[in-house]
Amino acid sequence: MQASAENALLPTGLSDLLPPDAAFEAAVVDRLTALFAAQGYERIKPPLIEFETSLLAGAGAAMAEHTFRLMDPISHRMMGLRADMTPQVARIAATRLKNSPRPLRLSYAGQVLRVKGTELKPARQLGQVGIELIGAEGPAADAEVILLAAETLSALGLEGLTIDLNLPTLVPAAAQALGFRKTAIKSLVQALDRKDAAAVAGHAGRHAVLFQGLIGAAGPARRALAALQRLDLPPEAAEERRRLGEVVAHAFRALPRLHLTIDPAEHRGFEYYNGVGFSLFARGARNELGRGGRYVSGEGEPSTGFSLYLDSLIQALPAPAAARRILLPLGTARGAAAKLRREGWITIGALHATADMMDEAHRLHCSHVWQGGRARSVAKTSPRRRKTKA
Amino acid sequence: MQASAENALLPTGLSDLLPPDAAFEAAVVDRLTALFAAQGYERIKPPLIEFETSLLAGAGAAMAEHTFRLMDPISHRMMGLRADMTPQVARIAATRLKNSPRPLRLSYAGQVLRVKGTELKPARQLGQVGIELIGAEGPAADAEVILLAAETLSALGLEGLTIDLNLPTLVPAAAQALGFRKTAIKSLVQALDRKDAAAVAGHAGRHAVLFQGLIGAAGPARRALAALQRLDLPPEAAEERRRLGEVVAHAFRALPRLHLTIDPAEHRGFEYYNGVGFSLFARGARNELGRGGRYVSGEGEPSTGFSLYLDSLIQALPAPAAARRILLPLGTARGAAAKLRREGWITIGALHATADMMDEAHRLHCSHVWQGGRARSVAKTSPRRRKTKA
Repeated sequence: MQASAENALLPTGLSDLLPPDAAFEAAVVDRLTALFAAQGYERIKPPLIEFETSLLAGAGAAMAEHTFRLMDPISHRMMGLRADMTPQVARIAATRLKNSPRPLRLSYAGQVLRVKGTELKPARQLGQVGIELIGAEGPAADAEVILLAAETLSALGLEGLTIDLNLPTLVPAAAQALGFRKTAIKSLVQALDRKDAAAVAGHAGRHAVLFQGLIGAAGPARRALAALQRLDLPPEAAEERRRLGEVVAHAFRALPRLHLTIDPAEHRGFEYYNGVGFSLFARGARNELGRGGRYVSGEGEPSTGFSLYLDSLIQALPAPAAARRILLPLGTARGAAAKLRREGWITIGALHATADMMDEAHRLHCSHVWQGGRARSVAKTSPRRRKTKA
Repeated sequence: MQASAENALLPTGLSDLLPPDAAFEAAVVDRLTALFAAQGYERIKPPLIEFETSLLAGAGAAMAEHTFRLMDPISHRMMGLRADMTPQVARIAATRLKNSPRPLRLSYAGQVLRVKGTELKPARQLGQVGIELIGAEGPAADAEVILLAAETLSALGLEGLTIDLNLPTLVPAAAQALGFRKTAIKSLVQALDRKDAAAVAGHAGRHAVLFQGLIGAAGPARRALAALQRLDLPPEAAEERRRLGEVVAHAFRALPRLHLTIDPAEHRGFEYYNGVGFSLFARGARNELGRGGRYVSGEGEPSTGFSLYLDSLIQALPAPAAARRILLPLGTARGAAAKLRREGWITIGALHATADMMDEAHRLHCSHVWQGGRARSVAKTSPRRRKTKA
């Protein structure tokens, strides 16, 4: 998209998607939701606006400052323009779909709006696409969601996919078991997030070796798990480690060549999760493509899922091939036109009789003209004359 | 959708679309935009929010009272949540696409929001899908748009499609040429809209026969055109009639069996149009499916287009066939699962080893179980046992 003066017509962080970008984005969303549906993830479509009380309930509260508010002239209650669809999915699972069998597999795709963008992501309207697996415990559920993300992104044509696993419960569990106070745990978590070994040592005291070891245990999953295994974790943290190992084992059993990494000290942005979390990256993609993990849904149901960031995904995908456009003279039979479209052509109907169809086709960005019952290439005819006109 | 107490969680006129409705709606939108694209109508995606000044400019002003307003904390200017996408399309055509060759063929699909619903349509969030043909005069352009609507709705599986043509410029042109004052023209137009022959006679005075004749000239297109032809219209109105006749001739030349009707006295809801307008209906559809017509776009460009009402369309379409769901035991090879999906199955992965896969499949609404390398039907095995458990 161009950042021209014309964009000043629109508020900062809001933009028009033009051809061919808008169609491509829609095609990516279709493909994603079709791939989700094929593995049983059924689509739901919550409204763009809800009552503030339900939109910002539970985990939704984190989005309060990012949410546009509107007064409802009918109920005189405050409504919010959704900034995140996941609280809506949790609401639907806990209410209208509370009697549907568990595990409940849901998918969603839609637009979210934010009061302000960030420096890194100035956009205030974002496309969000994702799935939730609700009411499912155990490593097979975590692995299903991770594998679904991997297979889906590969099917879209992304190459060099990496899934970075983390375990935001590990450090708090270990520190708590070792008798650290709440404020000390917080400082330790932050130092680990920064990978600041000296600060970690300072906060960890006599347990410095253990917590510094977590920084060293980051990297490709098999090696990282082995390094984690060598750490002398207290039982509560060892249990977390065991769960992570099981999830990795499930994932590798299904896709042995999956590129999984582990960063056991990562915590920032995953506070919401109470089990294995993950971030999605791909070679050549500037930004994170999405993230997910295990959490507790609305009514206390063990759940896992992921959200994809549509803008990052679109940037990372190869541009689609342009379809061939053919100009049809006025009065071309409907049957001939329909046949061309079935063959994959985009047909452009001329609205006037034109003396030079080749010139007209060129003007309308058509590569071909339908003449005498066949598609004639524009490029091959009188390029010189057209050039002088252009 | 159920109108249960749970819906009270949402503001009036806003609702959740659940499985399978949400997926079906998305599939209909995909199909529509694909059909539009095949005839050169390229998709654009304007933002959900814009500055009020641009959203409500020109023809957009009609939606002012239906539009939610928001203060932009960045620019401190008022923004509007779109209630109609067509002013956005006009804005884009006149600004960012002003140098694209004409005619410009654009399509759009998205959500619009209204401050209040109507008694007939209480929904406050609506799906809008449509096309615009911008910078094109002449009957071939009108016919292209009418035929695109007809072919698209037929391709979706709608039967008994009727396109009702009107000509909102005809009565004003005739009355003005015959020396009627502005207020008298307005009364006459309203009486004709109500098909109130006595009131028409009252307002039309010595021209009663002519204007009452317009009420009689409604019906199937060929017959209505013949009846119109017999009316003694002043030249300005006769010119409008000639244009209508040309559009009908173009449409019938392409699709001789098209079910076209004409209501030359219809005006209400078509004030915006300055040429042939049309409404789309289908057998069994409770409501109008969409409407369109000729208008002048943002910067004075002659244009025509149509909008479809997604909610009416969905109600009128036959429900899609449910895909077959098959339960895969934990540990099923990825290759076998992928093959089943390629064959059209929806695969549901079991997350635990289960003693009775048939019961589990039944519980998860799967018709089949993958056992011993083949799909075994649930229905055919031990229905009695399952019934006692249900």
